[in-house]
Amino acid sequence: MELAELNAALDDPLLESMNFLNEVAIRFPDSVSLAAGRPVDDHFDPAELEGYLSRFRRYLSADLGYDQRRVAQTLFQYGRTKGIIHDLIARHLRVDEGVRADPEAIVVTVGAQEALHLLLRALRAEPRDVALAVAPTYVGFTGAARLMDLPVLPVASGTSGVDLADLRARLLQARADGLRPRCLYVVPDFANPTGISLDLPTRYRLLEAAREERLLLIEDNPYGAFTGQDGRLPTLRSLDTGAQVAYVGSFAKTVLPGARVGYVVADQRVRGRGHGYFADELGKIKSMVTVNTSPLSQAIVAGHLLAHDFSVIRANAAVATRYRRNMSLMLAGLERRFPAGGDVTWNVPSGGFFIVLSVPFRADDGLLEHSAREHKVLWTPMSHFYGRTGGETQLRLSCSSLTPEDIETGLDRLAALVAEQRSRAAQAPR
Amino acid sequence: MELAELNAALDDPLLESMNFLNEVAIRFPDSVSLAAGRPVDDHFDPAELEGYLSRFRRYLSADLGYDQRRVAQTLFQYGRTKGIIHDLIARHLRVDEGVRADPEAIVVTVGAQEALHLLLRALRAEPRDVALAVAPTYVGFTGAARLMDLPVLPVASGTSGVDLADLRARLLQARADGLRPRCLYVVPDFANPTGISLDLPTRYRLLEAAREERLLLIEDNPYGAFTGQDGRLPTLRSLDTGAQVAYVGSFAKTVLPGARVGYVVADQRVRGRGHGYFADELGKIKSMVTVNTSPLSQAIVAGHLLAHDFSVIRANAAVATRYRRNMSLMLAGLERRFPAGGDVTWNVPSGGFFIVLSVPFRADDGLLEHSAREHKVLWTPMSHFYGRTGGETQLRLSCSSLTPEDIETGLDRLAALVAEQRSRAAQAPR
Repeated sequence: MELAELNAALDDPLLESMNFLNEVAIRFPDSVSLAAGRPVDDHFDPAELEGYLSRFRRYLSADLGYDQRRVAQTLFQYGRTKGIIHDLIARHLRVDEGVRADPEAIVVTVGAQEALHLLLRALRAEPRDVALAVAPTYVGFTGAARLMDLPVLPVASGTSGVDLADLRARLLQARADGLRPRCLYVVPDFANPTGISLDLPTRYRLLEAAREERLLLIEDNPYGAFTGQDGRLPTLRSLDTGAQVAYVGSFAKTVLPGARVGYVVADQRVRGRGHGYFADELGKIKSMVTVNTSPLSQAIVAGHLLAHDFSVIRANAAVATRYRRNMSLMLAGLERRFPAGGDVTWNVPSGGFFIVLSVPFRADDGLLEHSAREHKVLWTPMSHFYGRTGGETQLRLSCSSLTPEDIETGLDRLAALVAEQRSRAAQAPR
Repeated sequence: MELAELNAALDDPLLESMNFLNEVAIRFPDSVSLAAGRPVDDHFDPAELEGYLSRFRRYLSADLGYDQRRVAQTLFQYGRTKGIIHDLIARHLRVDEGVRADPEAIVVTVGAQEALHLLLRALRAEPRDVALAVAPTYVGFTGAARLMDLPVLPVASGTSGVDLADLRARLLQARADGLRPRCLYVVPDFANPTGISLDLPTRYRLLEAAREERLLLIEDNPYGAFTGQDGRLPTLRSLDTGAQVAYVGSFAKTVLPGARVGYVVADQRVRGRGHGYFADELGKIKSMVTVNTSPLSQAIVAGHLLAHDFSVIRANAAVATRYRRNMSLMLAGLERRFPAGGDVTWNVPSGGFFIVLSVPFRADDGLLEHSAREHKVLWTPMSHFYGRTGGETQLRLSCSSLTPEDIETGLDRLAALVAEQRSRAAQAPR
């Protein structure tokens, strides 16, 4: 078998990124990981699984009136392509986001990743189609787009999370080039990798721009539950009055990564299909990708929602406090180690998992390997979140799943790496 | 949103098939379903889940020496893209199939469907690429290929399960037309929808033809555990000495449909990638489709394998006996209702789930709706398994998950439908 005979996307470094980022922690278990955007897991309890499962079974029998046989078939057999917990997710969206969504417009997916995959597959129709994305961009979006031969045009983030003038200019240029922009991908709350959030006026202005430009917004919201002290801002979907937003949600960070359950709300009406929902088109594609999302996994998420009155925000209150504390410790720890006005700088997100650090040397995969081996600290090269160029001297730091001690140890080791690289640069021939 | 602006595959009836077939039983719960290719489920016990989960946890701690934290992280966190139970699946393949596969060449997938999706995505590189498939063909294969703009050329099944002369002729013609054949999809054991199996000489000859033609065989084996009285034949993969076979397995029928766990063994070496496994390329694609398969789902399958000494065949012995009994009852019931030499005929599979019935009238989706409403019996129009034409007067019947009483009731209702359609045809103007 020849690589040259396989899909050309396989020769793109982008396709390596997700594996690389996912597995680097497995390769270096002794390192302190400032790399992984994982939720904390020391409160996960195998006994809870059983509780959630039986909570969902009770709901099926007591609330929906299913007999024992039908309960077992719901949990164990093949089922509805768009999912079996759409009603419960709709209630969760009402409670936590103030969003009224028709359950029929929800597709339950194998993580948010499958939702992105389905959206891009549906939207990519012709060679002239392109996607736009606020850059730097989560690799799961750019990678999925690459698989479908859908170019991704970067839109500047700026300080507000999306530079609307740049968005307009990109759209104008793309259309002048004969391209057809299909969507803009944006993470309005604590974006991965920058940690930046859109302020409220920017949210309104973005929706207005999308309406004027007839552009679908893909709003991806994995971190929205983990706000800083400033509190929560409404999602784009909750402010949307013109069906401009396809909303991608995830229970990976709020319930359990190992359940692999996400969803998309896609209540756009499709002309030419009796004004059915866009979600139904996504469901057809899903039937050829994974058939349906594991009903067992869905049951665990459902049990969690039922046990916590449909609020993952309230259920995650204690955990969110820990993330806020970790973020404060990390920012304070950076200040102690890298003096103001020096050659190492960073941004100050108001919540979420990520900080971006700028350093005076190339921070690529090679340096990460060296850092893991010699300094026992992991971080993420920002270049993974750019296209061909960008982010070469930036690191993404995550503090989500660390103890205070690990944060200090990790930063000590990072500071040692920085000192080493500085002195190497000083010794290098000019 | 305009349908005409979306991916053209969404306008292909093929994409409706999987949903339609999956959900028709949900729409008509009072019907007897001779449609669904489901495993029996009355022996599924929610209590067993817990047992399988704790069996796998014991394996992680006692056999692999994981501490409690690492056990929890293995179950609950993100994990290895290619899966976490690859070693156990390799042991299962040795026990049940006599196959020695490197665990690193296995990708655990969200059902067999994702495995087919990954294979086709990797193999489809250029517009001239085509797949071949024994026709009639499982819609999950043709539908996934349609999503990727990969035409599927039909190869005649004949009485042996694959007509090798037709295969050679199709390949010759395709290459003469400037096309590049990438693979042949075949279900050697009790194919869906025909129920036909390849005999042993045909298996050897097919492997020989694949070697000579440098053609990858995609062997899909969801029903291999459910043999008739003639016993099992070796899989293509187990006879393969030239890395001609990508083997797709599923635990949906043998362990639990609701776990959504399948896998692919792809130990072809990829030149241009340091002779790494084809499985590694599939893993890269998977990272952009579903990131990884739910570790909880994998844990349940793993617990089942551990609890049954890695043999799903032995674990399914009692169930397989029921499938054989059902098939005998169905065949005997057809004989009693439709006399030999008449206008209704069928094939006699030696195992598996499916029988194909030929009738003297069009058996399309419209007639199925009528059959469900008026006669309360479901079956599958064979036209779903063909391309644009074929199977118009054929039905697929499944007897896998029925009681003996349901089989008799279902066949009575089917006979009433046949009688009604016969008399309508007799009354129709010529």
